[in-house]
Amino acid sequence: MEKRLVIALGGNAIIRPGERGTVEEQRRNVALTCRQVAAVMSRGYQVVLTHGNGPQVGNILIQNEEARSLVPPMPLDVCGAQSQGQIGYMLQSELARELASAGMNVPVVTVVTQVVVDPADPAFQDPSKPVGPFYTEQRAKRIMEGGQYVMKEDAHRGWRRVVPSPEPRALVEERAIRLLVDAGVLVIASGGGGIPVRRVAGGWEGVEAVVDKDLTGQKLARLVEAEGFLILTDVDRVFIHHKTEREQPLDRVSTGQARRYMEEGHFAAGSMLPKVEAAVRFAERGGYSIITALDRLSLALEGRAGTTITKEV
Amino acid sequence: MEKRLVIALGGNAIIRPGERGTVEEQRRNVALTCRQVAAVMSRGYQVVLTHGNGPQVGNILIQNEEARSLVPPMPLDVCGAQSQGQIGYMLQSELARELASAGMNVPVVTVVTQVVVDPADPAFQDPSKPVGPFYTEQRAKRIMEGGQYVMKEDAHRGWRRVVPSPEPRALVEERAIRLLVDAGVLVIASGGGGIPVRRVAGGWEGVEAVVDKDLTGQKLARLVEAEGFLILTDVDRVFIHHKTEREQPLDRVSTGQARRYMEEGHFAAGSMLPKVEAAVRFAERGGYSIITALDRLSLALEGRAGTTITKEV
Repeated sequence: MEKRLVIALGGNAIIRPGERGTVEEQRRNVALTCRQVAAVMSRGYQVVLTHGNGPQVGNILIQNEEARSLVPPMPLDVCGAQSQGQIGYMLQSELARELASAGMNVPVVTVVTQVVVDPADPAFQDPSKPVGPFYTEQRAKRIMEGGQYVMKEDAHRGWRRVVPSPEPRALVEERAIRLLVDAGVLVIASGGGGIPVRRVAGGWEGVEAVVDKDLTGQKLARLVEAEGFLILTDVDRVFIHHKTEREQPLDRVSTGQARRYMEEGHFAAGSMLPKVEAAVRFAERGGYSIITALDRLSLALEGRAGTTITKEV
Repeated sequence: MEKRLVIALGGNAIIRPGERGTVEEQRRNVALTCRQVAAVMSRGYQVVLTHGNGPQVGNILIQNEEARSLVPPMPLDVCGAQSQGQIGYMLQSELARELASAGMNVPVVTVVTQVVVDPADPAFQDPSKPVGPFYTEQRAKRIMEGGQYVMKEDAHRGWRRVVPSPEPRALVEERAIRLLVDAGVLVIASGGGGIPVRRVAGGWEGVEAVVDKDLTGQKLARLVEAEGFLILTDVDRVFIHHKTEREQPLDRVSTGQARRYMEEGHFAAGSMLPKVEAAVRFAERGGYSIITALDRLSLALEGRAGTTITKEV
């Protein structure tokens, strides 16, 4: 039995900060990312991939807005589904190439994934996740008066729509994902944290929300019984006392200690905090979690980079 | 063993002629479509679904064009992948509801699907499939001079980009699709005919083309060893001598007779002709193909509606 990993790719694995997100940029970044993933697989790991979709769904929302007079805009859940198709296809394409050049014949499949959320989740009382284009104050207030969206000012950059970021409860496609993974398929799933849906009579209905991709990622990791859950971001390791004189990188930390650091406010909300939360949740069930930079993936698996979180140190 | 069918949904199963394609319209149409599919499944058929994406990818291309100054436009293959995510999600959502209300517990999964095409396919010498927005003659000629696209005039409605429509050679995700179908999963695959890709060193590369969804559909039907291949469109049956005094609907026709009708020019290119071609190809390998209207699906399976094509009549 291969050692199974779930790897969560951050947005910067596909569109880097400062890039506009041309297809050439995205393909180049995805190719570098997939090379890292193939390197890990050639060392005997089975990988399941998940990824963020912030920049891509942001672009799709802007396109929807700009073409509003010609094409009816799609709601956030449908835009999220589009971004899963887009990113999944790009990953499939580059992974096939990297796996082939590493001499591996592994089928790659993107599963369009819905994530169940609870309408009673307190997040619905406090929409806080910014999505889509920036608006002027005047336009934002007009949109809010229309009652359609909640808008908030984003420091100096204008106003943006904010949506709830509820907890992931389960993946709707869990049986199929499990089946494919057990058959040795490289599965790309729950992109962007999954398309949030709520239970309605007999089925599911899309919800205007964004689920944190790492919180969903740890659900995915538990579903496939991964031994490790890796969150790839833009820093080598997690810091405590970040950006102070006492700044200190974490190499290995227990789930208990990590929870104490969280309570002490060491990690930025909306940035490192949900990553640590997701990593801790997975490790509390017995596996290991690693938070590291994309290019440190292989080193981190050898314990030579990254922050590793386990139940006991 | 259940009787296995591949059902190819036409564009009108999701956005009907004259509709703008609001999310409410699409959801309502998809719900009606999924009710038909669930009815067939409750009669003991296992179903694999495929679908067109013309109106959806058209809208995505318009959105890309309108937001061009803010967001780098994505190429056709990426837009196709987006449309697979979008339509697959909508179908998954409504199928879950319809299956549950019919008392069936069948997992539903959309597989983002690439279709292999041959760069030597003669279609690349003669781009003929119109995609995306209409342009004025002046703008179209400027775009053509830029060398990026081939544009053609579309009768009285303006100029449009045309792309090649090559033959489907194989589905890249065939192993995963087969695995899921054999495990009893309701698979949605090769939407819009699949994302066209060509083989490059060790992998695949997207191609700016559109593959006919029914031609890919019959490949899918052969892949999963379906007994029947159903093409759902907006007419109850196929006609010969269409729109003349001698007009005659076809109930049952042999593949040989159908090929003769094709050669005699009874079917409109870009409309009924590729459907009959796809239906004949599947039937020539031993199964049955049916071309009928969406709401005649169940009747057609009883032989009481539609045009059925088999090797021998």
